[in-house]
Amino acid sequence: MTKGKTWFLPPDRYFDPDPARRGIALELYQAVADLPLICPHGHVNPALFSDQNATFGSPVELLIIPDHYVFRLLYSHGVPLEKLGIRPADGTLTEEDHSRQSGTEYQRQVWQLFADNFYLFRGTPTGIWLASELHDVLGVDEKLNSANAQAIYDHIAARLASPEFRPRALFDRFHIEAIATTDGAGDRLLHHQAIRASGWQGDIRPTFRPDAVINFLLPAWRKAVDALSDASGVTVVSYATLIRALEHQRAFFKTMGATATDQGAQSAYTDSLPIQEAEAIFQRALHGEATVEDWQSFTAHMLMESARMSTEDGLVMQFHAGSVRNHNEALFERFGPDMGADIPERNEFTHNLRPLLNRFGNDPRFSLIVFTLDEAAYSRELAPLAGHYPAMKLGPPWWFHDSPNGMRRYLESVMETAGLHNTVGFNDDTRAFLSIPARHDLWRRICADWLAGLVVRSMVDLEEAHEMIQDLAYRLARQAYHFDRGGQQ
Amino acid sequence: MTKGKTWFLPPDRYFDPDPARRGIALELYQAVADLPLICPHGHVNPALFSDQNATFGSPVELLIIPDHYVFRLLYSHGVPLEKLGIRPADGTLTEEDHSRQSGTEYQRQVWQLFADNFYLFRGTPTGIWLASELHDVLGVDEKLNSANAQAIYDHIAARLASPEFRPRALFDRFHIEAIATTDGAGDRLLHHQAIRASGWQGDIRPTFRPDAVINFLLPAWRKAVDALSDASGVTVVSYATLIRALEHQRAFFKTMGATATDQGAQSAYTDSLPIQEAEAIFQRALHGEATVEDWQSFTAHMLMESARMSTEDGLVMQFHAGSVRNHNEALFERFGPDMGADIPERNEFTHNLRPLLNRFGNDPRFSLIVFTLDEAAYSRELAPLAGHYPAMKLGPPWWFHDSPNGMRRYLESVMETAGLHNTVGFNDDTRAFLSIPARHDLWRRICADWLAGLVVRSMVDLEEAHEMIQDLAYRLARQAYHFDRGGQQ
Amino acid sequence: MTKGKTWFLPPDRYFDPDPARRGIALELYQAVADLPLICPHGHVNPALFSDQNATFGSPVELLIIPDHYVFRLLYSHGVPLEKLGIRPADGTLTEEDHSRQSGTEYQRQVWQLFADNFYLFRGTPTGIWLASELHDVLGVDEKLNSANAQAIYDHIAARLASPEFRPRALFDRFHIEAIATTDGAGDRLLHHQAIRASGWQGDIRPTFRPDAVINFLLPAWRKAVDALSDASGVTVVSYATLIRALEHQRAFFKTMGATATDQGAQSAYTDSLPIQEAEAIFQRALHGEATVEDWQSFTAHMLMESARMSTEDGLVMQFHAGSVRNHNEALFERFGPDMGADIPERNEFTHNLRPLLNRFGNDPRFSLIVFTLDEAAYSRELAPLAGHYPAMKLGPPWWFHDSPNGMRRYLESVMETAGLHNTVGFNDDTRAFLSIPARHDLWRRICADWLAGLVVRSMVDLEEAHEMIQDLAYRLARQAYHFDRGGQQ
Repeated sequence: MTKGKTWFLPPDRYFDPDPARRGIALELYQAVADLPLICPHGHVNPALFSDQNATFGSPVELLIIPDHYVFRLLYSHGVPLEKLGIRPADGTLTEEDHSRQSGTEYQRQVWQLFADNFYLFRGTPTGIWLASELHDVLGVDEKLNSANAQAIYDHIAARLASPEFRPRALFDRFHIEAIATTDGAGDRLLHHQAIRASGWQGDIRPTFRPDAVINFLLPAWRKAVDALSDASGVTVVSYATLIRALEHQRAFFKTMGATATDQGAQSAYTDSLPIQEAEAIFQRALHGEATVEDWQSFTAHMLMESARMSTEDGLVMQFHAGSVRNHNEALFERFGPDMGADIPERNEFTHNLRPLLNRFGNDPRFSLIVFTLDEAAYSRELAPLAGHYPAMKLGPPWWFHDSPNGMRRYLESVMETAGLHNTVGFNDDTRAFLSIPARHDLWRRICADWLAGLVVRSMVDLEEAHEMIQDLAYRLARQAYHFDRGGQQ
Repeated sequence: MTKGKTWFLPPDRYFDPDPARRGIALELYQAVADLPLICPHGHVNPALFSDQNATFGSPVELLIIPDHYVFRLLYSHGVPLEKLGIRPADGTLTEEDHSRQSGTEYQRQVWQLFADNFYLFRGTPTGIWLASELHDVLGVDEKLNSANAQAIYDHIAARLASPEFRPRALFDRFHIEAIATTDGAGDRLLHHQAIRASGWQGDIRPTFRPDAVINFLLPAWRKAVDALSDASGVTVVSYATLIRALEHQRAFFKTMGATATDQGAQSAYTDSLPIQEAEAIFQRALHGEATVEDWQSFTAHMLMESARMSTEDGLVMQFHAGSVRNHNEALFERFGPDMGADIPERNEFTHNLRPLLNRFGNDPRFSLIVFTLDEAAYSRELAPLAGHYPAMKLGPPWWFHDSPNGMRRYLESVMETAGLHNTVGFNDDTRAFLSIPARHDLWRRICADWLAGLVVRSMVDLEEAHEMIQDLAYRLARQAYHFDRGGQQ
Repeated sequence: MTKGKTWFLPPDRYFDPDPARRGIALELYQAVADLPLICPHGHVNPALFSDQNATFGSPVELLIIPDHYVFRLLYSHGVPLEKLGIRPADGTLTEEDHSRQSGTEYQRQVWQLFADNFYLFRGTPTGIWLASELHDVLGVDEKLNSANAQAIYDHIAARLASPEFRPRALFDRFHIEAIATTDGAGDRLLHHQAIRASGWQGDIRPTFRPDAVINFLLPAWRKAVDALSDASGVTVVSYATLIRALEHQRAFFKTMGATATDQGAQSAYTDSLPIQEAEAIFQRALHGEATVEDWQSFTAHMLMESARMSTEDGLVMQFHAGSVRNHNEALFERFGPDMGADIPERNEFTHNLRPLLNRFGNDPRFSLIVFTLDEAAYSRELAPLAGHYPAMKLGPPWWFHDSPNGMRRYLESVMETAGLHNTVGFNDDTRAFLSIPARHDLWRRICADWLAGLVVRSMVDLEEAHEMIQDLAYRLARQAYHFDRGGQQ
């Protein structure tokens, strides 16, 4: 490899510089650095594990194309997505174009562009993850730059061709104890079944995500409903059959190891409709006559219904609120969703969650984990709610806030009011499999540093801090997602 | 007492670990650590002081039952309030149940449950206060745990039986210079009168709180209005008589040493109604026909009226906004209010306070102290308002934010824009009498540490910091609440 | 001068006390401390530079009267503006009064009042700027206090009388590379023309501010429209002629060196109207029949039109949102605008900017710089938007947030998500010319300290930090405002 600058990754990185605090942070971090990873929420493709010979493709296919954190920042500086290997979904690319994009020459051009702009990631969490992926996982010694870009490309490509870099091998190397994928309500979980059938022992669990069959304003809704009908054996022709089909699939997901569901909505509004009204709305949706008001009411109602089902079947309910999807319409039309153009909005929880929490929040069978992109709600609404209702817990800092400062703000805003045990540790929430260790490592480091800060200010003693770092790094996530209860396999 | 771990309470606790900063923080803290306590806003029961032989009851009655900060967190982990000595208000408990709950065996069970879950308070302000109460006030050497719970119960119970632990004795030991209680508009202040009549010199002042006679949607409203009629001698049958009765009682409170009023509302909306409209709404309320809109208008109007009265009679007006009371309806029905289920909501001040500030904000006779639970309003709305209007000052971090991080965020967000002298020092706002020294001590420590941070960054010099810590710890509260003007006794 | 306390201004002021961090901060700061100042947004009066013999007047006329940051805080403590040399705009002052106010005796009284209350600025950014202005620029060795007030007045007055303290001399001494003023759409830029004609080489550029001709609810609107007609030669009698006149003037401003426009609005709402509707609203405005809804629609529409023009003519578009102007109505009636009574309000950007960003946000010719007073929007809305749209960048911390903590919150909330290169460095935004070096110096210090914090936590290495401090102190502002492209002179 050409000689360049090496990475700057000392063992006490991301810790406060105060020597007393740093020493304690390092002690706490080292106590959990090698614990297995609990990954209860994420978007890794299970197909990576169903075939023991699956590979990650090229460096570009591994590190750039699937990671909207990466290409969003390049796009914001005027780099067109077409130059980054992202394929338009609008059919404007010819077969020839596609074939060219798969070629090494094009891939190398993308990589060069990435290297030329690598300075843009300075001080960003993506920069941290990339450094860790390149150095720790892929063995790249030098910082990426324009001059060494092609040599590093060669190095990574060679690594990815070796058996040690197949997904299952990395799963073991990363010391993942259990990982949950995210799967549509109508998914037959064929990859999960194949994993089981293969005899491989990796603990890969599905998560039940019903959004696509609830959100009837999306173009793909009817297709999702059909898939649900097929998978469940309950033909969904009504609200009543929708509920039956969902209940059937939840039970099926449970047999496949699922312990949780996941639901997203722009608003946190919850509200119960009379059954006849829910049915009427659903019929309007089936006939293409539903309104935006219908959609809001139905979303609010289905959150209530999901809570009811969770209370009955014990699946932990996750709720993510506040992302305005596909904000950039031209980009959406050309490239589809998940292109780095989802923008958070203000969210209200105190009033919106009240109906749901009043009905199910005191029930010991129910567990609700809430995520937000609106940090102003941490200390004002979410920590007080989690610090009162037995059923509610607060999820880790989400998405844009899964960063050193984001984590610090979370820990400092939430813990005093909610108490540590009303939170659920960490999850990586990523489709970039290679970034998983880096994300957990960053969380463990920031938590160790936060706890060291409490120790040097005598807020807790060292013995307590050692308990708390175990909670944050491993135990809380395992308990909150019922991974400690054994699967139903 | 069984041998356990001792508390971790070094003299420089809660300070930043940087040696330079810590040294200055300690110097500043020590300069004010023994100053008398000014307690201008709180909820201590004056009955504790009217009878010189009053006691605090059992350890559970002292530390758990009256402190919703404590039992809220236990409840959030699934501990039913019934197991914590909280008495349902819905009449479902028999006399026998009540008698059993007063028994030592039950009290010890509650205490054990508290000790078993004591780890939940790690890193919370309640954990800080409890450590201070147990160690500093009650002489408990060991950290509370499951094994030593009963021995510590015995120890505390023995202390509480001694004369040194009667309320008046602790009032002196805590070095309280003056304390204000909170009292309904229709209160005859019998306990305050008894304190005066007793010849005891403790300075206990009432605060005029008219909420119960304004908020006509509350079930207890009519009873509160009747009490106001009785106490004032003005039979309240109209808006006009309501105002007369309130004015009468404010004058009476002043003769009893009151220097301030306190008003709370969900929203900060202020607006003047024409008198005829205020009268019409009040008549609808008397006839049980008032609407939610009536209630909003009347609340807004009565804030204006209170400001007018304060401008005329000189009582400092306190205004607390943003708490959604009794969020958990099932809990409210069974146990009543103040059960740890009040949840903050977003608040708007710039537009809502404009009518009030435009009418009275430039008047040198008027003083308004505003409190919020919405920290996003600190730097955006409240500090700019307090930094402009002569009449407006900003109250200390309130409720959930009366914590190390809450105080830090307040100091860092407010002071640059409002300036120190548009704030009013500290108040403890508590009904847990034993926690008062701990709360003031924490404020003094966090302020000393904040000022030390300014000194080491050369924002202020040490001489200025010494002035500012006197302001924060003692002088600002005394001035803002007119405790420096002598009582009207 | 009477002997008093000297200022406390060590070379490493405003840096974190950790020795490792402080050392790096000082190194980074020193690398940029003497770089020229780029001042792309501000409110300095160009008349200061058009006449080579212009002076700043008395100490009071220099430091107090033009600085609402200063007199706002004095006013909030009950000092009437009349006692601070502020002239009522309501015609209640006689000629005799005015003449008295210009007299030395009155000026000295104001200065004494300022000195007596100088403690109010402790810990505020204004306190920092004043210390720097008095010490660094004016050579005042002692801290201002009641005793030395008059001696310091003499000292400053003497300085201001010397040629070294004329505006052009200070422009050179301050090492200002380029400064942009803010000028109404109908301004003929006579002072800018005079500067050019004088042969003086100072780079003073106008900025095109069309607010006064758009905001038809303001009393001075028609006068502003007439000025626009006169200046442009296009008689504005319709929406169509308004657009033509604006386009004409933008072109004229460009010939005078302008590279940017500036627009303000209470809300960030953007929306395109059909031309006929825009025309209809404008006609209603001309006939005095426009409504508040008209005004909102037209403001939203004109933001879109400005973006279109910027896309076509290349002027960088600045947008400031969220200030409720003239909150204190009595003060406004007596003294007019800019009296320290503008109060921020909550702002929404995700939905409001969507129409504008969808239409122009992907266009490489367009550049939009957004400012906010609502810090809650930094990490939630603005950083994600700037981190996606190629055209959008985020302006520096604005107004109340142009302070040590305000800058820190900005850097910590914005940079992780937006990335440094989607921000635009600093601007001083001031009409107080003397405070310009202090403001830039504070920014450079806080940025150096922030970067040092990243280095000691190994977020970036020292080499990267050196690049980044050059960006923050100089390069980003120069690039974002196209000062690197040469003028059109």
